Amino acid sequence: MAADPGAGAPPGTLWLVPNALDHGADPVPIDDVLPLGTLRRAAALAQWVVEDARSARAFLKRAGAIVPLARPLQSIVIRELPRAPKGGSAGAGASAWRELLAPAHAGEDVGLLSEAGLPAVADPGSRLVAAAHAEGVPVRALPGPCAPVLALAASGLDGQHFSFVGYLPQEPAARIARLRELESLSARLAQTQVFIETPYRNAALLDAIVAHLDARTRLSVSCGLTLPQGWSRCDSVAGWRARPQALPPRLPAVFALLAR
Amino acid sequence: MAADPGAGAPPGTLWLVPNALDHGADPVPIDDVLPLGTLRRAAALAQWVVEDARSARAFLKRAGAIVPLARPLQSIVIRELPRAPKGGSAGAGASAWRELLAPAHAGEDVGLLSEAGLPAVADPGSRLVAAAHAEGVPVRALPGPCAPVLALAASGLDGQHFSFVGYLPQEPAARIARLRELESLSARLAQTQVFIETPYRNAALLDAIVAHLDARTRLSVSCGLTLPQGWSRCDSVAGWRARPQALPPRLPAVFALLAR
Repeated sequence: MAADPGAGAPPGTLWLVPNALDHGADPVPIDDVLPLGTLRRAAALAQWVVEDARSARAFLKRAGAIVPLARPLQSIVIRELPRAPKGGSAGAGASAWRELLAPAHAGEDVGLLSEAGLPAVADPGSRLVAAAHAEGVPVRALPGPCAPVLALAASGLDGQHFSFVGYLPQEPAARIARLRELESLSARLAQTQVFIETPYRNAALLDAIVAHLDARTRLSVSCGLTLPQGWSRCDSVAGWRARPQALPPRLPAVFALLAR
Repeated sequence: MAADPGAGAPPGTLWLVPNALDHGADPVPIDDVLPLGTLRRAAALAQWVVEDARSARAFLKRAGAIVPLARPLQSIVIRELPRAPKGGSAGAGASAWRELLAPAHAGEDVGLLSEAGLPAVADPGSRLVAAAHAEGVPVRALPGPCAPVLALAASGLDGQHFSFVGYLPQEPAARIARLRELESLSARLAQTQVFIETPYRNAALLDAIVAHLDARTRLSVSCGLTLPQGWSRCDSVAGWRARPQALPPRLPAVFALLAR
């Protein structure tokens, strides 16, 4: 760990704060899905780095209704993560991350927040966490919902050996090729493969899986995790063929497959 | 989905209930780490299938101190998951799982609980969930702590592409071979590799990583996740060599590595 570039005071901590999974849906009561300890920690923070400032303010209003915020929302500093070019690896340089961590070097705790779920897992934020480690800023992750992991648990597929592989290609031929690659990896490594898609492409992704993967491959789809209308279904590809099911175009879904 | 083998009534739901991560450590307040919605759901259940009956009763006492249990603890039915032979795949037959799900077929909700974290993820339970899907019993996973995912978030390593690979071999030569294989997989698939060890072997595992992996490979260790004394450190193998750090022999740790 690099030495603290600030003066003598110990640095603040970077807290990874999970958000609810109801982004874009009817909000659930936030204390239904986030622990009080997480809400208390969030309510105490005056410095935030977030995926999206608007949804971060909405989160703080919801948290503040359960645990009063330590200071007025207007005086809480909310800065957005640099937007990474989609699929790109470079993005912001080291100085941008250092600047976002400046409050921690001044001794203040900083929160990291996504629009939904746990920051830095299937979501932006890991570059900031890496910068914190490089600069000697302590990092703590707080418990709360995380869609890929809830989907894996609810799938009944192998949860002792799994990969999360993010988004699949949008172009149909590339998507099919990637699905076949994941099916083959799943069989070879005996690993559940977990992936996601933007809601309006869920139906196209399910169609591609059902049309192109092996009949014996097991496929789980979880829609609307933690929401009242949420559901999970796990069946063989043959079963999905025999009993087709429409996916809601607006609910986030998580897919998991296990091949043999 | 198979038809409900019971009479006309709709089946109950199988609820996957996360447990705190303080198993074997000083307990934290349970509502610090579990959402109220999860505790409310747990407190309403009269039928449980669990990894360990003793720790399940302790969990229900803790939950009941926050949300009164719907019925006295003595009248709550708690059955243990069949113990799978370590590393084995077979274990209990289909009839055992069907029998554990009998209350759901009679219309009652059933809870599934581990000693720590989310059931069926890095933990037993997925066979019961698979049986529920096969028998048409709805499955819902409730949010709460999950150690591998909190460790991944806190690592700052790639959280968009990762594998969880469970336990490593205990035998030194086999452990080194597996570590090298994971390092090579990590580089080839551009995936963070996440793995765990029983606490008293944490130091031996860290020693093996530091001695045998590439100096540029990044290694994160998270100890005591969600506990007051918890910490995460991510550094290059070269950094771990230059600044060795002892791991507490009793705290669970999660390891994550990313090679290039």
